[in-house]
Amino acid sequence: MAKEIKTIGVLTSGGDAPGMNAAIRAVVRKAIANGVKVKGIKKGYKGLLNEEIIDMEKKDVSDTIERGGTILGTARCPEFKTEETQLKAAEICQKHGIDGLVVIGGDGSYRGAQALARHGINTIGLPGTIDLDIACTEYTIGFDTAINTAMQAIDKIRDTSSSHERCSIIEVMGRNAGYIALWCGVANGAEDILLPEKYDFNEQNIINNIINNRKRGKTHHIIINAEGIGHSTSMARRIEAATGIETRATILGYMQRGGSPTCKDRFYASIMGAYAADIICEGKSNRVVGYQHGEFVDFDIEDALAMQKTIPEYQYQVSRILSL
Amino acid sequence: MAKEIKTIGVLTSGGDAPGMNAAIRAVVRKAIANGVKVKGIKKGYKGLLNEEIIDMEKKDVSDTIERGGTILGTARCPEFKTEETQLKAAEICQKHGIDGLVVIGGDGSYRGAQALARHGINTIGLPGTIDLDIACTEYTIGFDTAINTAMQAIDKIRDTSSSHERCSIIEVMGRNAGYIALWCGVANGAEDILLPEKYDFNEQNIINNIINNRKRGKTHHIIINAEGIGHSTSMARRIEAATGIETRATILGYMQRGGSPTCKDRFYASIMGAYAADIICEGKSNRVVGYQHGEFVDFDIEDALAMQKTIPEYQYQVSRILSL
Amino acid sequence: MAKEIKTIGVLTSGGDAPGMNAAIRAVVRKAIANGVKVKGIKKGYKGLLNEEIIDMEKKDVSDTIERGGTILGTARCPEFKTEETQLKAAEICQKHGIDGLVVIGGDGSYRGAQALARHGINTIGLPGTIDLDIACTEYTIGFDTAINTAMQAIDKIRDTSSSHERCSIIEVMGRNAGYIALWCGVANGAEDILLPEKYDFNEQNIINNIINNRKRGKTHHIIINAEGIGHSTSMARRIEAATGIETRATILGYMQRGGSPTCKDRFYASIMGAYAADIICEGKSNRVVGYQHGEFVDFDIEDALAMQKTIPEYQYQVSRILSL
Amino acid sequence: MAKEIKTIGVLTSGGDAPGMNAAIRAVVRKAIANGVKVKGIKKGYKGLLNEEIIDMEKKDVSDTIERGGTILGTARCPEFKTEETQLKAAEICQKHGIDGLVVIGGDGSYRGAQALARHGINTIGLPGTIDLDIACTEYTIGFDTAINTAMQAIDKIRDTSSSHERCSIIEVMGRNAGYIALWCGVANGAEDILLPEKYDFNEQNIINNIINNRKRGKTHHIIINAEGIGHSTSMARRIEAATGIETRATILGYMQRGGSPTCKDRFYASIMGAYAADIICEGKSNRVVGYQHGEFVDFDIEDALAMQKTIPEYQYQVSRILSL
Repeated sequence: MAKEIKTIGVLTSGGDAPGMNAAIRAVVRKAIANGVKVKGIKKGYKGLLNEEIIDMEKKDVSDTIERGGTILGTARCPEFKTEETQLKAAEICQKHGIDGLVVIGGDGSYRGAQALARHGINTIGLPGTIDLDIACTEYTIGFDTAINTAMQAIDKIRDTSSSHERCSIIEVMGRNAGYIALWCGVANGAEDILLPEKYDFNEQNIINNIINNRKRGKTHHIIINAEGIGHSTSMARRIEAATGIETRATILGYMQRGGSPTCKDRFYASIMGAYAADIICEGKSNRVVGYQHGEFVDFDIEDALAMQKTIPEYQYQVSRILSL
Repeated sequence: MAKEIKTIGVLTSGGDAPGMNAAIRAVVRKAIANGVKVKGIKKGYKGLLNEEIIDMEKKDVSDTIERGGTILGTARCPEFKTEETQLKAAEICQKHGIDGLVVIGGDGSYRGAQALARHGINTIGLPGTIDLDIACTEYTIGFDTAINTAMQAIDKIRDTSSSHERCSIIEVMGRNAGYIALWCGVANGAEDILLPEKYDFNEQNIINNIINNRKRGKTHHIIINAEGIGHSTSMARRIEAATGIETRATILGYMQRGGSPTCKDRFYASIMGAYAADIICEGKSNRVVGYQHGEFVDFDIEDALAMQKTIPEYQYQVSRILSL
Repeated sequence: MAKEIKTIGVLTSGGDAPGMNAAIRAVVRKAIANGVKVKGIKKGYKGLLNEEIIDMEKKDVSDTIERGGTILGTARCPEFKTEETQLKAAEICQKHGIDGLVVIGGDGSYRGAQALARHGINTIGLPGTIDLDIACTEYTIGFDTAINTAMQAIDKIRDTSSSHERCSIIEVMGRNAGYIALWCGVANGAEDILLPEKYDFNEQNIINNIINNRKRGKTHHIIINAEGIGHSTSMARRIEAATGIETRATILGYMQRGGSPTCKDRFYASIMGAYAADIICEGKSNRVVGYQHGEFVDFDIEDALAMQKTIPEYQYQVSRILSL
Repeated sequence: MAKEIKTIGVLTSGGDAPGMNAAIRAVVRKAIANGVKVKGIKKGYKGLLNEEIIDMEKKDVSDTIERGGTILGTARCPEFKTEETQLKAAEICQKHGIDGLVVIGGDGSYRGAQALARHGINTIGLPGTIDLDIACTEYTIGFDTAINTAMQAIDKIRDTSSSHERCSIIEVMGRNAGYIALWCGVANGAEDILLPEKYDFNEQNIINNIINNRKRGKTHHIIINAEGIGHSTSMARRIEAATGIETRATILGYMQRGGSPTCKDRFYASIMGAYAADIICEGKSNRVVGYQHGEFVDFDIEDALAMQKTIPEYQYQVSRILSL
């Protein structure tokens, strides 16, 4: 029989992502509506270990849905990988009467949630990352905002790139995944899109592409390069040397992590947060919430971590044809 | 055996929606990559009847993906419902060598596509409407941009509403469907969300809600009202009279139809446009492209028009709980 | 000899405007840096009469510069026109140890500040209104944000207006002044700009202009109408009837008052707020701060209220020529 | 007696800036309204030397006011410094019947205009640069858009900086001038603002400031660094080493040069463009248009180039006090 849940905690872990506040807000309000108390844990697992724990009422999440970042703060916590630390964290939860914990973060954070579940604290994971690199879900909190932020910046770079007939390499985030690069590549009409999953490191192809496009009268050349490939600045130098065309690199950087969330990020993060609150209040544990095939669903954490996903082949093929 | 497709046409029909240009661009470039010629038809079915038909090359859609509206123009064409007009349109297609036609628009536009298919012109429909009110698809071109435009406007209204401790009724588009209202309602943290699918016209409930919230210290009250309910201005007058609280209505109007498309609208419209080009080049006809359960798919137009969809019940329930 | 200032108050009055928080923040921090205490008065003169007065420290204005609205709230207070109320307000100031008061608002608010000065409370006015209708200054807090908000909305309406070859009338705020209409008219490349200061109510001219433009191949016609003229909806009906061209009105409304302030509004409001803090700490009273001829300056309130300003004639002439 | 002007040319030179298209549009339409023909010269002085010259009608600048970049293109042209090249350019102007030339660019471009004026081609300069580093004017085309682009990006970085309690160094453009850095520093509430005109290269002060702020409970520390100082990445490394606080650098880069212009940039660039058209049609030459003390004015180019301007001292002092 599922244990009775009287109080839950919520924390954000790993890199922050726009929409995390919408998720926190939904967890808090839905859990309270379900008759369960909520505590906020600051700065992720690190704050849990330091017992940075606060009570949260419905009004504490007012006027937060539109804000970037995470009101709870976040931090990396490499020491959370040890059994000893996990046990200590479970004890702290028990000490504070926390029966269950909603963890908003990425794959690494789910490992911690899994460990806590083993030690008797019910846990539910929510996919919070701008990188979309969580296999069990087609949606992650923050991706939609990040791609719009990057796209709008690239639109601007394209203006000046055209005016100067320049080649521009724009490096977008995504860690080892190419989703942000693929979406921006298509949305910005980029001439080349370099994805960690696909790139063959044949720079001569890019150079030939630039030279051919210039011959055909194109006045700019936009290359979207993924963080997982990196080295945009040296790439720009090599391309300029090989083509004789002025080439500049821009690394968009941390702005992609912030900003007021888009409507999709606010909406999906709200529904997902409510869903997480509902299943944790029902006594479920060791699960991660995802969005798959048009439905909000949940998976065993181990199963979720074993899943694989990759760039959809048709989308990748289309991205190459549209830019020609 | 499928007839050979040498030339296709593309048109936009009904209300315009951001992302239509991305779809046109993808149809043009993918069809040409498939070895097929493309003609653009201006101003929807009306332009077809007037033979406003132009050749389209790859470069003709350069620098259009980021633009709102439709470069082909659009128009209503009520006379297209008659058999006689449909026959004439099919003859015009044949005269111009148009073997197939991609129609970007809503349900009404698919009826025309169906008729043309009956008269020997292969047709493929693409869902273009900000209203999301096409049953066979979870995504329609323009919805994502429209909800972000509306949400950002409502964020601003909320600022001034709070400063003045005012009640604000904001009317969003959506025709008879409440999707825009639901998404903005959740994303803007609205206190009340009025959907055509759900609203019981019990204004006293809203009034009580406002009075109770004010007693509990809330400094503003945002009501998102859907176009399908309408009458926001008179509603504001009645609510102000009943509550004594200053109440103002804003009808967001046509700005929701325009603007540079979001990343999702540019990306999905591009993939869908390419998909439409591929299946029309393969000889398919009388189909409409949709996005369902995480996949781009296509349906027989008659089947698509017979489908139903409605506001997801869980999302609606969550929307009511989060705003409390 | 100027009286010694130990404590000042700050309030926002009249309609709210983006940038008011930047001004409050600057008043608070600069005054404290000058060794003076600061109290915040909520909801304008109304809150003063209700003694809604709070202490403000430097940290109380953290993370406010980027927010729309006013953190102090605002309200109309028609009863503040009576001598009796003004005396009471002065007594409340004295009771709370408030030696001076910074009033952020429009012309009406300065009358109140003048009265308080007469009753021994030092007062400094800051020009806070989106309407730019304060004669003694070329800059008012909020105007720059409002024109950008309106302009971006009109850009979107223009997209859909072009797609449908429609005539669009867009009504912008500004009370009896046409500044917002003039700036948006030029910035949006409007075909007609109707200003209260200039409009001759000859609708036939507009109608002729539309018909002539259509003949010359223009696919849309944008009319920016100022709030001071109003009646956009009935105007649209008459124009559609006279021209046979689909004509739609949009009243942008309250969104123009909100939103995160532009860089100029944050910067100028900050400098002006600091300036106000400095002169009130020096013992000046009955002054209003303005920006004139490239300098931040201050005037006697009576002198300021006696000044006149109007639409610059050259700018108006240019606006008519550029749209042809 | 002034020579009669029948045809003028217009070009953009040096780095592009948002609003240049508004200026081009105004030059074209106002000159034509004055009865003068207009030719567009592509890619600055380089395009002039290559005779890349096109006729421009009123409709050629339709739908350009809202676009970033420059529709005429721009380029550097170091060879234009030689007398021989200048003479050749003047001859090309005469060959194409160009009696006068409006040059939109920065100080360097005015030298070229001065030379052409010496060789009998009337010239008028317009201040087009995002850097605001032209001494004779308080406004330059593009600055307002650039500061808003930078500010919005910094707002986003601040979100994630707070979530992670990180120190962020953000490098903004401006060449050797600190105006963009100063405005963003104030508008984003930065803790430190490093201006080329003021910075003493005492990094220890910054480090102490960070440590003190952290002790006082501040959760982030934003440093705006101007391009003229640069070296943000190595600065971040040194600060992280000295403080033990995670420190990251972002170089905003070329996005600051692009994007749809703000209302102010569209409006002022339009008025200035019209003004330039008027005075060149009147026969004036060797002048540069500026905005000073609230008026649009023009100066002899030599006088303009001899002027000096610097960061206003009061604004700088305020910037340091508000961030404490």
